[in-house]
Amino acid sequence: MSKLFMFEKPIGMRDTLPHIYETKKKIKDQIGQEFKLAGYQFIETPALEYYETVGTASAILDQQLFKLLDQQGHTLVLRPDMTTPIARMAASKLLKEQIPIRLAYCANVYRAQQREGGRAAEFEQIGIENIGDPTISADGEIIALLVSSLKKTGLKHFQISIGHIGFVRNLFQQILGTEERASVLQSYLYEKNYVGYKEHVKQLSLSSIDKQRLLNILNMRGTENVLQEAISLTEDGKGQGAIDELKQLWLVLKDHGVESFVKFDLSLVSHMSYYTGILFEIYAEGVGYPIGNGGRYNNLLEKFGFPTSATGFGIRLDFLLEAIGELSEEEPMQCVLFSKERRKEAIDFAKSLQEKGERTVLQDISGVQDVDRFTVKFSKVHFYIGTPKTEVEE
Amino acid sequence: MSKLFMFEKPIGMRDTLPHIYETKKKIKDQIGQEFKLAGYQFIETPALEYYETVGTASAILDQQLFKLLDQQGHTLVLRPDMTTPIARMAASKLLKEQIPIRLAYCANVYRAQQREGGRAAEFEQIGIENIGDPTISADGEIIALLVSSLKKTGLKHFQISIGHIGFVRNLFQQILGTEERASVLQSYLYEKNYVGYKEHVKQLSLSSIDKQRLLNILNMRGTENVLQEAISLTEDGKGQGAIDELKQLWLVLKDHGVESFVKFDLSLVSHMSYYTGILFEIYAEGVGYPIGNGGRYNNLLEKFGFPTSATGFGIRLDFLLEAIGELSEEEPMQCVLFSKERRKEAIDFAKSLQEKGERTVLQDISGVQDVDRFTVKFSKVHFYIGTPKTEVEE
Repeated sequence: MSKLFMFEKPIGMRDTLPHIYETKKKIKDQIGQEFKLAGYQFIETPALEYYETVGTASAILDQQLFKLLDQQGHTLVLRPDMTTPIARMAASKLLKEQIPIRLAYCANVYRAQQREGGRAAEFEQIGIENIGDPTISADGEIIALLVSSLKKTGLKHFQISIGHIGFVRNLFQQILGTEERASVLQSYLYEKNYVGYKEHVKQLSLSSIDKQRLLNILNMRGTENVLQEAISLTEDGKGQGAIDELKQLWLVLKDHGVESFVKFDLSLVSHMSYYTGILFEIYAEGVGYPIGNGGRYNNLLEKFGFPTSATGFGIRLDFLLEAIGELSEEEPMQCVLFSKERRKEAIDFAKSLQEKGERTVLQDISGVQDVDRFTVKFSKVHFYIGTPKTEVEE
Repeated sequence: MSKLFMFEKPIGMRDTLPHIYETKKKIKDQIGQEFKLAGYQFIETPALEYYETVGTASAILDQQLFKLLDQQGHTLVLRPDMTTPIARMAASKLLKEQIPIRLAYCANVYRAQQREGGRAAEFEQIGIENIGDPTISADGEIIALLVSSLKKTGLKHFQISIGHIGFVRNLFQQILGTEERASVLQSYLYEKNYVGYKEHVKQLSLSSIDKQRLLNILNMRGTENVLQEAISLTEDGKGQGAIDELKQLWLVLKDHGVESFVKFDLSLVSHMSYYTGILFEIYAEGVGYPIGNGGRYNNLLEKFGFPTSATGFGIRLDFLLEAIGELSEEEPMQCVLFSKERRKEAIDFAKSLQEKGERTVLQDISGVQDVDRFTVKFSKVHFYIGTPKTEVEE
């Protein structure tokens, strides 16, 4: 193979070096422990699924799917999200138990990128799905769990932005009439292109009152006060249902004591088309894009033959790591360097350190080309070299 | 989608239910901790690699590779093993530090299966690679670490079968002359088809002495005694080098105190074509196939432009789980069932249990369809229902 090509990785694919690996593992364990304490159970699903099942049910754009053919000629996809595979699994296996069920996952998902430029095509998500519980208590529970999990990682400055897809859809339908016109506006919102949104609204042939209503949606941000204002945007109480759910949610979140981490943003929509109700995004100081998102998806399980409600969220671990901003401290490592004559002695000494929980490399000095450069990374080096019974410490 | 198809997974793909997930996680943490104490550092590589780099350097048969095209028209593969990606990564990044370096991994690998029948197309391996140390001390170190890691999982009855690819190759070349004739015999050995091997040897046009030498290789199994016998099979001391290495290895393993877990088997060969020296397989009582394997591969790093020696092993976690035979005890889970009026009280109580480390589900009773069936799985159920201040315990 050519020298230039031989180290390359496909677009969006990354290696993870030891220090980042350990930091990520620590965070995963902290969050996972919090999920488990709240009764969520971890499961795994395969990396490959049939395109016909999980691929088409997923909300990820077709062009972002990694597709391949199996030896029987079926199209397979690398899972683009975890919510859809879990829906398949829950519908086929887990619902024999009584719902609601609480599941958790920590897994890589795959989304093809068009070009190199820092966007990951493989990234790890940790998250939960609460399946079969239609109550606002369930929405509140997962948001409270999200907050407590993030706090466990040491993340200090973060905020959950909460909206309701039903509110936006209702308002757009009232004012714009057609699904098509609504979806154009909706895509400005999920791209957070507010300038484009305003420009687009201005050139619509609508009354100035309706235009103002569409523009006002961008101002519906804040705590429970905005919910009252939002009702004034709706007509004849349509869309009131969504606001009522958000009002109930606010009370649940207050009972959980997490309301200070939460803001409403009624312009929030998602690229995940399966959301049907309350939805949210997670923002952390210093990171310009959501580090995770979630919401209610009451129609997805039905695609797998088991109509039931569900709500859940996923956190992107690479973005969370970026938000936390610092790597955990590296554990010091010692080294026991030996020559053949004192091998047994060196082994026993290294073992005694390891048994005390001290990371210790045991190294035959004849396997080292440059002792100075090799030993520089260790916090302490013990020499068991030459004639037995003379330990030299450095 | 059709009802029959909608739950299906691609051939060889599996879901992992909570109880198995937790057992596997416990085992991974036990082994991972042992690796880390010995100074091995965990890294990750991407699931997808270029066919041109990792795909062709890997020892896995081309027909077992999952291949796909990226949007630029390059062929990608799902990594079929971890040794090759780690060689790529080490050659490109890690060797700026001084070798030897010690790396560890825990990752899924992918091998396409022709038909359904219980063989996994995706399975998790945990293992290590010791890169840049040509000494027998390094071979001994990894085998000793393999033994101590398996002991940490509670596995009691297991054995490491150790051979040397150089011994078999030398003997075959001496007797059979051509690579082609040798490779036919070698494939009988790695399929462990000893009957087929004997039949094939009998019909070769060789002297009866040479036939006997080829048959005798099957008897070269046991502790250090067989090493002496094995030398008698070689001619003019060719192949003596391999036996000398195994003799040294035996002494190193004795110094590590793990010799009772080890047997030599000089008929051992591998389907991994990159092995160049000492190689081994791990057998556990009650499982009819190796639960892992390893060995020395001194030519692989060269393919990535950094000629250096290496040795390592991988354990298949699904097979190890099978060998251990029992799942870890399930943590009991409690449930706090509440109605709206007592939500705050219920939340506070559930939190107090969780803070004590007790797994506790908090459930709005209006989200439950069948309270009896829902609560059956909990070790204890606390009711916060109706008028405040009357707690009913079940």
